[in-house]
Amino acid sequence: MSDDLFARTRALFDLPEGVIYLDGNSLGAMPKAARERVRRELDENWGRELIRAWNTAGWIDMPSRIGDRIGALIGAPTGSVMAADSTSVNLYKALNAALRLAGPRKTILSDSGNFPTDLYIAEGLIGALDRGYQLKVVALEEVTEAMDETVAVLMLTEVDYRTGRLHDMAALTAKAKALGIVTIWDLAHSAGALPVDLTGVGADFAVGCGYKYLNGGPGAPAFIYVRPGLQDEVAPVLSGWMGHAAPFEFDLHYRPAPAMHRLRAGTPPVLSMAALEAALTVWDGVDMAVVRARSIALGEAFIQTVESLCRELQLASPRDPERRGSQVSFRFAHGYEVMQALIAEGIIGDFRAPDIMRFGFTPLYLSPGEVEAAARRVAAVINQRLWDQPKFRARNKVT
Amino acid sequence: MSDDLFARTRALFDLPEGVIYLDGNSLGAMPKAARERVRRELDENWGRELIRAWNTAGWIDMPSRIGDRIGALIGAPTGSVMAADSTSVNLYKALNAALRLAGPRKTILSDSGNFPTDLYIAEGLIGALDRGYQLKVVALEEVTEAMDETVAVLMLTEVDYRTGRLHDMAALTAKAKALGIVTIWDLAHSAGALPVDLTGVGADFAVGCGYKYLNGGPGAPAFIYVRPGLQDEVAPVLSGWMGHAAPFEFDLHYRPAPAMHRLRAGTPPVLSMAALEAALTVWDGVDMAVVRARSIALGEAFIQTVESLCRELQLASPRDPERRGSQVSFRFAHGYEVMQALIAEGIIGDFRAPDIMRFGFTPLYLSPGEVEAAARRVAAVINQRLWDQPKFRARNKVT
Repeated sequence: MSDDLFARTRALFDLPEGVIYLDGNSLGAMPKAARERVRRELDENWGRELIRAWNTAGWIDMPSRIGDRIGALIGAPTGSVMAADSTSVNLYKALNAALRLAGPRKTILSDSGNFPTDLYIAEGLIGALDRGYQLKVVALEEVTEAMDETVAVLMLTEVDYRTGRLHDMAALTAKAKALGIVTIWDLAHSAGALPVDLTGVGADFAVGCGYKYLNGGPGAPAFIYVRPGLQDEVAPVLSGWMGHAAPFEFDLHYRPAPAMHRLRAGTPPVLSMAALEAALTVWDGVDMAVVRARSIALGEAFIQTVESLCRELQLASPRDPERRGSQVSFRFAHGYEVMQALIAEGIIGDFRAPDIMRFGFTPLYLSPGEVEAAARRVAAVINQRLWDQPKFRARNKVT
Repeated sequence: MSDDLFARTRALFDLPEGVIYLDGNSLGAMPKAARERVRRELDENWGRELIRAWNTAGWIDMPSRIGDRIGALIGAPTGSVMAADSTSVNLYKALNAALRLAGPRKTILSDSGNFPTDLYIAEGLIGALDRGYQLKVVALEEVTEAMDETVAVLMLTEVDYRTGRLHDMAALTAKAKALGIVTIWDLAHSAGALPVDLTGVGADFAVGCGYKYLNGGPGAPAFIYVRPGLQDEVAPVLSGWMGHAAPFEFDLHYRPAPAMHRLRAGTPPVLSMAALEAALTVWDGVDMAVVRARSIALGEAFIQTVESLCRELQLASPRDPERRGSQVSFRFAHGYEVMQALIAEGIIGDFRAPDIMRFGFTPLYLSPGEVEAAARRVAAVINQRLWDQPKFRARNKVT
């Protein structure tokens, strides 16, 4: 049953021969529908309709249409998600709004497993506002304890980009709520990877990425969510014309558009938006719980095979699959060289300094057989110290 | 000689049959190179190279490569322009940096001919900073007089989006400099439309648009310029990981990248970037002074023909072509209906409330014969009150 489903979704992707792709957590593979859609935008819309396509091809509504498709994957109601800008820029919008809503409190709480851009953006905003805000970054396991009534905003990424470790979003959000802390969740490694229920957990803001598990293409537009009850309280900081109540009236003063529309800033990059919109059609008829079950099965199989064949690696991810996102990471001193050797063979994962090898599992296009084959090669490359052999290095151009 | 040039550049574009396109000031036509390049990004890079394409296809350096190509068109030295985000977002970056550089002064001076998003963005930033900044918006002709030592930042768009009226960028920048005012120029309707010399005039910051006269595609990424001497003084407000000194070291703290690289924020939308990069190749071997001369000739011919055939229109653009950008605007009470009727015939300009019909002239792909034909149809539609006739309205679906 689920095999049928994944055979069907696999056929929706265009994957190169001879490659086992374990890096969908960094850049998702290309859905055929995305390629066809972008070609159509070029040939039929930009090329033939020109400026008229903003209406005739519906370009103007892409950010909200895409937002609704993403919303369906993360437990967000229609009209509560907007596709726009990059994750960094959306986090800036969310954090500025969250600090305003939080009143006089001055602390932004995050953890050292957050993706660095989130921390950088917070630093930039704090510097610009210059009102005594501070960013407090604690270890992953200290977040719960660090929450108290001095904290204005809790800003976390659900899935640690290095290890795949999963925060307990429901419990942390509930505690934050009880303490009057505004919450911002970064779903970069969650959306399309596992079930997310923004409504159920009561998150205030969320942002996330279009180019990882959503397969929207390189640098695809990101998204932003605001809890419906808060949307009309948000005073947009990036108050561009596309977020104006009447952008084509060209008023001299800004009036925020209703609800989420105010979270738009400038003109959206249509070609990249189109790829993302079409990519999201691969989720039609796909149950995220089934994807999650398969992702766990793939990850478990990978760990078991690697560890049964090779004793040198240290699992960097939580061993309990319920505490992991859709990736498995191993620590290894020669991880960089091993990954280069694997990539040279067409087994594509990635490496994060100082010593983490990451392998992402994307059930929509990755089969159990491929995962098994990849695990065997990982073990073999290490056991034979292949990356160290001059002949191998020369043949595979390992540098 | 210049006919040969423009016959050559015209052949670089894919334009629909039966259309005379006078809206390149809103969305530039599609260069064939842009279409081919985006197809290649899909088929060869995203589709085959996947994550590796960030290096193998040079995605990572696109923002600065594109920036340099744009820089060559606006008098900016290599390394002083970055392609990124939208014009609105780039203006936000520039304005925040400019206010910091301006010290204790509190006034942002602009004019009512500025494109509204610039004013909205200033309002949003002022609200967020909450430090007593004020936006002073005067009439176009009052800008010079309004400059004094209370003004922190002069923020203007060189070409008025409605009328095409051109500011005297050199004189205004010189006066600003003498008064210690930091300058931000929006080149949305200038870049690719007329010669700009950012270095020569001594502008501090500039932003602009990739999808108008640069033909980068719908919602193409925008650009930002910072005067070389200022770049290292800019503390980026949108301090995302792509602007970090070492983005792949994943430090927990932000350190700005050298010079313009710090003006990048998040991951760039590669497909839209690729279209823009390829679109800029049409400028190879094109002298902007020759483009400007042709643009003036086209505009003058258009005005002369329209006015000789039709007495009802009022020229909204300056009559002196040296005071105009690359567009001609007429005021007419029924301008909206006239434009709809023209568009239904394949003569595509646009309309800006309350009564302005805009016609953009893009010598790279627009011929004198087309301009003459368009002018005759404008006059005929008005003289015959075509838009008012039930048969015409029904046939052309004018609503």
